[in-house]
Amino acid sequence: MEFPRYSGIRTFMRLPHVTDLSDEVDIAIVGVPFDTGGTYRVGARFGPGGIRDQSMLLRPYNPALDVVLFEHASCVDYGDLTSAPGYLPESHGMITEGAAEVLAHDSVTPIFLGGDHSISLPLLRAVHAKHGPVGLVHFDSHSDLWHSYFDGKDTHGTPFRRALEEGLIDPQRSCQIGLRGSLYDKADYQMTVEEGMLMVDGPQLHKQGIPKTLEQIIAKAGEGPLYLTFDIDFVDPTFAPGTGTPEVGGFNSAQCQQLLRGLTPLARQIVAYDMVEVMPAYDPADTTSLLAANLVYEMMSLTAWSKKNA
Amino acid sequence: MEFPRYSGIRTFMRLPHVTDLSDEVDIAIVGVPFDTGGTYRVGARFGPGGIRDQSMLLRPYNPALDVVLFEHASCVDYGDLTSAPGYLPESHGMITEGAAEVLAHDSVTPIFLGGDHSISLPLLRAVHAKHGPVGLVHFDSHSDLWHSYFDGKDTHGTPFRRALEEGLIDPQRSCQIGLRGSLYDKADYQMTVEEGMLMVDGPQLHKQGIPKTLEQIIAKAGEGPLYLTFDIDFVDPTFAPGTGTPEVGGFNSAQCQQLLRGLTPLARQIVAYDMVEVMPAYDPADTTSLLAANLVYEMMSLTAWSKKNA
Amino acid sequence: MEFPRYSGIRTFMRLPHVTDLSDEVDIAIVGVPFDTGGTYRVGARFGPGGIRDQSMLLRPYNPALDVVLFEHASCVDYGDLTSAPGYLPESHGMITEGAAEVLAHDSVTPIFLGGDHSISLPLLRAVHAKHGPVGLVHFDSHSDLWHSYFDGKDTHGTPFRRALEEGLIDPQRSCQIGLRGSLYDKADYQMTVEEGMLMVDGPQLHKQGIPKTLEQIIAKAGEGPLYLTFDIDFVDPTFAPGTGTPEVGGFNSAQCQQLLRGLTPLARQIVAYDMVEVMPAYDPADTTSLLAANLVYEMMSLTAWSKKNA
Amino acid sequence: MEFPRYSGIRTFMRLPHVTDLSDEVDIAIVGVPFDTGGTYRVGARFGPGGIRDQSMLLRPYNPALDVVLFEHASCVDYGDLTSAPGYLPESHGMITEGAAEVLAHDSVTPIFLGGDHSISLPLLRAVHAKHGPVGLVHFDSHSDLWHSYFDGKDTHGTPFRRALEEGLIDPQRSCQIGLRGSLYDKADYQMTVEEGMLMVDGPQLHKQGIPKTLEQIIAKAGEGPLYLTFDIDFVDPTFAPGTGTPEVGGFNSAQCQQLLRGLTPLARQIVAYDMVEVMPAYDPADTTSLLAANLVYEMMSLTAWSKKNA
Amino acid sequence: MEFPRYSGIRTFMRLPHVTDLSDEVDIAIVGVPFDTGGTYRVGARFGPGGIRDQSMLLRPYNPALDVVLFEHASCVDYGDLTSAPGYLPESHGMITEGAAEVLAHDSVTPIFLGGDHSISLPLLRAVHAKHGPVGLVHFDSHSDLWHSYFDGKDTHGTPFRRALEEGLIDPQRSCQIGLRGSLYDKADYQMTVEEGMLMVDGPQLHKQGIPKTLEQIIAKAGEGPLYLTFDIDFVDPTFAPGTGTPEVGGFNSAQCQQLLRGLTPLARQIVAYDMVEVMPAYDPADTTSLLAANLVYEMMSLTAWSKKNA
Amino acid sequence: MEFPRYSGIRTFMRLPHVTDLSDEVDIAIVGVPFDTGGTYRVGARFGPGGIRDQSMLLRPYNPALDVVLFEHASCVDYGDLTSAPGYLPESHGMITEGAAEVLAHDSVTPIFLGGDHSISLPLLRAVHAKHGPVGLVHFDSHSDLWHSYFDGKDTHGTPFRRALEEGLIDPQRSCQIGLRGSLYDKADYQMTVEEGMLMVDGPQLHKQGIPKTLEQIIAKAGEGPLYLTFDIDFVDPTFAPGTGTPEVGGFNSAQCQQLLRGLTPLARQIVAYDMVEVMPAYDPADTTSLLAANLVYEMMSLTAWSKKNA
Repeated sequence: MEFPRYSGIRTFMRLPHVTDLSDEVDIAIVGVPFDTGGTYRVGARFGPGGIRDQSMLLRPYNPALDVVLFEHASCVDYGDLTSAPGYLPESHGMITEGAAEVLAHDSVTPIFLGGDHSISLPLLRAVHAKHGPVGLVHFDSHSDLWHSYFDGKDTHGTPFRRALEEGLIDPQRSCQIGLRGSLYDKADYQMTVEEGMLMVDGPQLHKQGIPKTLEQIIAKAGEGPLYLTFDIDFVDPTFAPGTGTPEVGGFNSAQCQQLLRGLTPLARQIVAYDMVEVMPAYDPADTTSLLAANLVYEMMSLTAWSKKNA
Repeated sequence: MEFPRYSGIRTFMRLPHVTDLSDEVDIAIVGVPFDTGGTYRVGARFGPGGIRDQSMLLRPYNPALDVVLFEHASCVDYGDLTSAPGYLPESHGMITEGAAEVLAHDSVTPIFLGGDHSISLPLLRAVHAKHGPVGLVHFDSHSDLWHSYFDGKDTHGTPFRRALEEGLIDPQRSCQIGLRGSLYDKADYQMTVEEGMLMVDGPQLHKQGIPKTLEQIIAKAGEGPLYLTFDIDFVDPTFAPGTGTPEVGGFNSAQCQQLLRGLTPLARQIVAYDMVEVMPAYDPADTTSLLAANLVYEMMSLTAWSKKNA
Repeated sequence: MEFPRYSGIRTFMRLPHVTDLSDEVDIAIVGVPFDTGGTYRVGARFGPGGIRDQSMLLRPYNPALDVVLFEHASCVDYGDLTSAPGYLPESHGMITEGAAEVLAHDSVTPIFLGGDHSISLPLLRAVHAKHGPVGLVHFDSHSDLWHSYFDGKDTHGTPFRRALEEGLIDPQRSCQIGLRGSLYDKADYQMTVEEGMLMVDGPQLHKQGIPKTLEQIIAKAGEGPLYLTFDIDFVDPTFAPGTGTPEVGGFNSAQCQQLLRGLTPLARQIVAYDMVEVMPAYDPADTTSLLAANLVYEMMSLTAWSKKNA
Repeated sequence: MEFPRYSGIRTFMRLPHVTDLSDEVDIAIVGVPFDTGGTYRVGARFGPGGIRDQSMLLRPYNPALDVVLFEHASCVDYGDLTSAPGYLPESHGMITEGAAEVLAHDSVTPIFLGGDHSISLPLLRAVHAKHGPVGLVHFDSHSDLWHSYFDGKDTHGTPFRRALEEGLIDPQRSCQIGLRGSLYDKADYQMTVEEGMLMVDGPQLHKQGIPKTLEQIIAKAGEGPLYLTFDIDFVDPTFAPGTGTPEVGGFNSAQCQQLLRGLTPLARQIVAYDMVEVMPAYDPADTTSLLAANLVYEMMSLTAWSKKNA
Repeated sequence: MEFPRYSGIRTFMRLPHVTDLSDEVDIAIVGVPFDTGGTYRVGARFGPGGIRDQSMLLRPYNPALDVVLFEHASCVDYGDLTSAPGYLPESHGMITEGAAEVLAHDSVTPIFLGGDHSISLPLLRAVHAKHGPVGLVHFDSHSDLWHSYFDGKDTHGTPFRRALEEGLIDPQRSCQIGLRGSLYDKADYQMTVEEGMLMVDGPQLHKQGIPKTLEQIIAKAGEGPLYLTFDIDFVDPTFAPGTGTPEVGGFNSAQCQQLLRGLTPLARQIVAYDMVEVMPAYDPADTTSLLAANLVYEMMSLTAWSKKNA
Repeated sequence: MEFPRYSGIRTFMRLPHVTDLSDEVDIAIVGVPFDTGGTYRVGARFGPGGIRDQSMLLRPYNPALDVVLFEHASCVDYGDLTSAPGYLPESHGMITEGAAEVLAHDSVTPIFLGGDHSISLPLLRAVHAKHGPVGLVHFDSHSDLWHSYFDGKDTHGTPFRRALEEGLIDPQRSCQIGLRGSLYDKADYQMTVEEGMLMVDGPQLHKQGIPKTLEQIIAKAGEGPLYLTFDIDFVDPTFAPGTGTPEVGGFNSAQCQQLLRGLTPLARQIVAYDMVEVMPAYDPADTTSLLAANLVYEMMSLTAWSKKNA
């Protein structure tokens, strides 16, 4: 309360900027400003900056989960991982390496701020190196399971196919929630189902509601480590216009909060989170970044909740 | 998949630009960039361009209706009809004439992109010349049944009164859905009811829900040809700020999709569609045009569905 | 109907601009363009102008309440109260004085357009001088019950604590609806409850719905004068981005209308209203001002309804 | 100094809103929010409102001309003339009639705020009825001398051809300054020259500079009444993006001020002014309206200067 | 004049969209929507679309050069070359191949619309294959002569170093005009001078003026084929905010026109043009795209002028 | 070159964030996000953040002054001073105190980022405490010499009158450059002249040019310490729309650079700088913040130049 909320250097929530992690850190915010994998709009490289800018209003107590963030979890802003814009495979290598350094500290649950969705692949590689195959909790309007785009290339539409091929994900404990929009082909959703993942597409989620969906996700997740990935285009483009491939017919901000808050039964299993595809250049009222910052806050709260209720 | 989605000349969905229609065409996108009938904000002349710009992301398979667009229906972009900006009666004549040329091909179901809502009158004249009186399926926040504005003049607030007077519409098979907002007079909604149309106003639609409303529309429509007109101000101004006379308290994008997708029982009866009042100058994040493009896509899907399930 | 709706000098709804009130006036729109109490974004001083600009489309008949505004209530735009930007305590004095002049006319129910929420304190002082303690009907995402900010200072986060301390409000007849978002401290909501006010926080309102909440508010309000204050950040920031401290997870425009329209049982008790925290500089599509103008219209309708049904 | 500059009902410079003119008024600001004549972008109907909004910062003393506005000239805001949107010829009749009422008061020099440039024709008709043929001082990027658009119709590109045909303008005392941009035909500029008007096109004005151009304008104007018309697209679109047919390669704000301030030798001859084609929907930072308001202020200053130096 | 300027499918100036070139075409507009080489802001992939959208107002007669475009030169819009977003070296190959197809027609002078500046390298490769080393006429705020970025990678900052290394450019006939802004190193400008190119940096161009600079460029160009490349960041960011690496202290729109128009003595030597780094997502009033479209029009006029004066 | 320019925590130019100054620091960037003194638009509290965001592109070598920033001067970002929003006198005390801590280190030349212009008063108090009366080099469109606003209150229009009254400034060595725009009173500029300051108003600066003006400033400054204050509204509102009280007819970005670069003869005398009135909420393309960051860079370069040439 000594400094007005709009002042100071803009780390996430004005957390200390700590690049030298130790085992006393519980939660690390880690930017991954890489967007060379984008196939339509681009600019998610400015996502971490935009999210940090709009995190200024966040305060430590989350009444919905009854948890005081900094009381139960030591939190830092690690800054950004590096990458080489324009060079996807090389950058993926750099991102895996950078993430591995963060994950080297056992106490740390990282929350990665994208960047486009292609970053989930190198991040999962680093997570897999430490934890083995993880269950995926995936909120998105697209399955991102495409084989390839443009003659065999990896993009932000392909990370989870690669992750499945490489065995980084355990499909039997994974789910994809909110898929919708037009597709190239009738076969586009088949892989999700054939691999054994739970799919709740957008219209179904609208119809069955959030409580039932939460039950399904939790039942599916089983025991073992989880990776939660949130593509901001899960949200309706009115609530999140600042993204790369917007799909109408999505979800609102209260529904997103309700979904994340409902994951407390899984909180202690989540070993890493990402929040991707935030694109400030398409966000005239900064509402996308504001929502993303609030959802990152819910991620932090989940981990803090698991510490409090350990 | 050979060209990235953002490249190329911007027809709707990058369809072939065909001005020489034949009986092999099933669906024709037809721009009607006329907006001289607007009584508050203007600029719907840029609507067709805006909608085409935001149609780039649309892909051929619609999972909600399980229909592959180009498999079941041959689709083209016909370009725009001409008109004389600033001259309403003369332009209405030109629009009727232009629409008649499109309708001369029996196979073609046109989807007209406005323009302001005054274009529905000349379009209905052309439709009537071919099909006789049609049932109207009308989504809007306004009834557009005003007698006149400004001393006896036609505007975007009067087309359906004229259409009723001229016998273009069969009120017994017609409905107006979503009406809301403040009115000049208590009598404003009476004509809808007195003429025998079904009216489900905004608050009632919020209350009774979409499934019941769909049942009512379908029951009302009976047999015979239908004209579906969609004023984008049916949608809440948060979801569709880019329009001429926004009314708060409207509907979201998922509800619009649900409404259109629910009209499959009427799909084969619909002889023409329009999507009007999209105004890109008031649409800072292009979300209005994006939503309109997606709803045009649902219109195409309805017609393709009727071909598939013929 | 003689002048197009976009023309003329912009008073609210183009009402007569009357600074010399008489006892024949029923409703007075009164701007209070003061925003020195803002702790994050600022610029609510342009709120009254923004709301007036977007009131042009409003028409006299409200079908939801079946009331013709100017038939049942004489309405004027009083212009703005003065204040000294940058000087909070002095300005509060000026605002109380200005409001007292308006309230000197017994027939007048004022609707104050803020300005930031700090203005509710001096307004309540003027209201209290005339009516004694009032019940508070308070829509907001924040309780605004902070003791102080920045070393003992009053801000837009503190007005209702001061009002309670000064006895301006009767907590037993008061409610706070829609509170949500992160807090400084677990104790932040306790005062509301301890003082005996009804609190329905955001998640609870989402869960229990509007009809039940209206019942609770009405039951709580009892008999006696009421003051209705509406902070536009009650609404979700997607629907109202133009505000000072936006909180995601809020309510949409139809829900706001439904809430206000449901207060008819209390309409004759409401002695004054305010609509605060509208900030046009953060409102790229003017949707916040448009919604605020429509909600002010519902406030006018409530008072007109009470006259019609007196 | 009693009220902050941002408060109050927004007349131009917060002048008294007087619709009942008398011979004690020297300068009347008169809105003409008509834009049905626009052939590309539309929305100049919101021009008067936009200009008034941005006039709030203007203060009474103009140091460049050493004149205190309200000391030497009594100024009012008359509000707006009416017209019928969508009906050009009818509206032109209404505008001529409305302008005639203003001009009926001999003391009054009106400054008309457009609206599109088509309004200059009916305004010139009213001016001609009182003063006979006038010299035209015309700042614009287009000559607006087209014979017709779209099959014989009047638009904002044709007013001065009509005015010449009707003898409203004395071409021997008239000039067109700043013409530039691509043309339909090599013959487009010939009429200006053939009719005997002075033409200084854009590149020439850049080359020869403002002082020499002022000399030419003043020499050309001779004795007798003048009408000064300023199309905001004279200015470069970077300085004035909010306009209907922007042409790059234009002039900056300081040059515009210098041009108007240099017309003091003609000030007493100017019987009316207009400022047209301001379009707020295309003006994201309100800089076009701000500049227009400042140039209207220079027009007021010219007339006030002529009173002071009478 | 039959269709209003805002209607129709948006090719450049509504030129025929011709993908099957012949030797009767003189000028081909060719989009190259590739932006994977951008090191700061990205999104130039939407440049060709943005420029086409803003070309609607352009008319055939250019009074500054006294040339009627379509009379002296047959013009078409070829559409866009393809590339693989996210894969720079592969895309460069595709672009060279695509450009070679265009250049296979001897009559055609292509004007390439970027895309980021990295595209000039593959374009120069195609040009070199046909014409041998060319003189470079390069307007830019950056020299784009960096050795590499991020560990040996090609980006939009390196194309001309590669072009020099590969012998695509004849430095003795080349110039770089408008360089300015902060640098990594004092040595950054040395290569330009050491290689024998003419450099006129920004401050010097402001000081010595355009006529003298034109003389220097023309003297330097000598005989033989030329390639003209125009990075929109040559312009001041106020005039062209929509670009990737804006540098203040630049040039205005009239100066850009004057520079291009002054190159008529070189017009017949120019074998290809490009206009790069236009980024619509950062261009809130579309002024960058509008200016770029106008400068492309001057390029077309130069080539048409050379045909007329052959 | 290891990290792309858009990545990392956003200090100014990604300088180290050092709050514990030592005598090894030469230049400290210090935010002063206080804006309670604003009389029209507000929001300069977000100025430091906006300027930092747009400083990412700046590189160490300034070719115009031939100086490598970090070679000749050790630079840090100190973060922001605190203040109490809404409480002007109290905040001024806090700012003086905070600035004094910075100035306690003799080696440090601070560059303060406002905040509104009222901050110059408390900053000058701190500067005076160390250096005694200073010469003022003041770029602005307003003299900010008003006695008071709104009944005796200090605002952003009064700091230099207070500073003169308190003897903080030596008027005989001071200048005000660029004053323009309408005034309340003919007397408004008299104080500048009567006190013995040099005044070059806007029109005069346009007329006499920059080289002559630089000579006058340098001659006036004499020997002894100087304080350079730059109000961004010195610049034309087209180049700097994001400011509180914009005045048209101003200067462009190249002219601003030329003015600052021309002050090298005074560089070693300048003991502190400020850059004020940057308001991101009114800056849709971020061009104001970008320009301000570049001008701050020129300030740093001046001080570095004086070290290099000591």
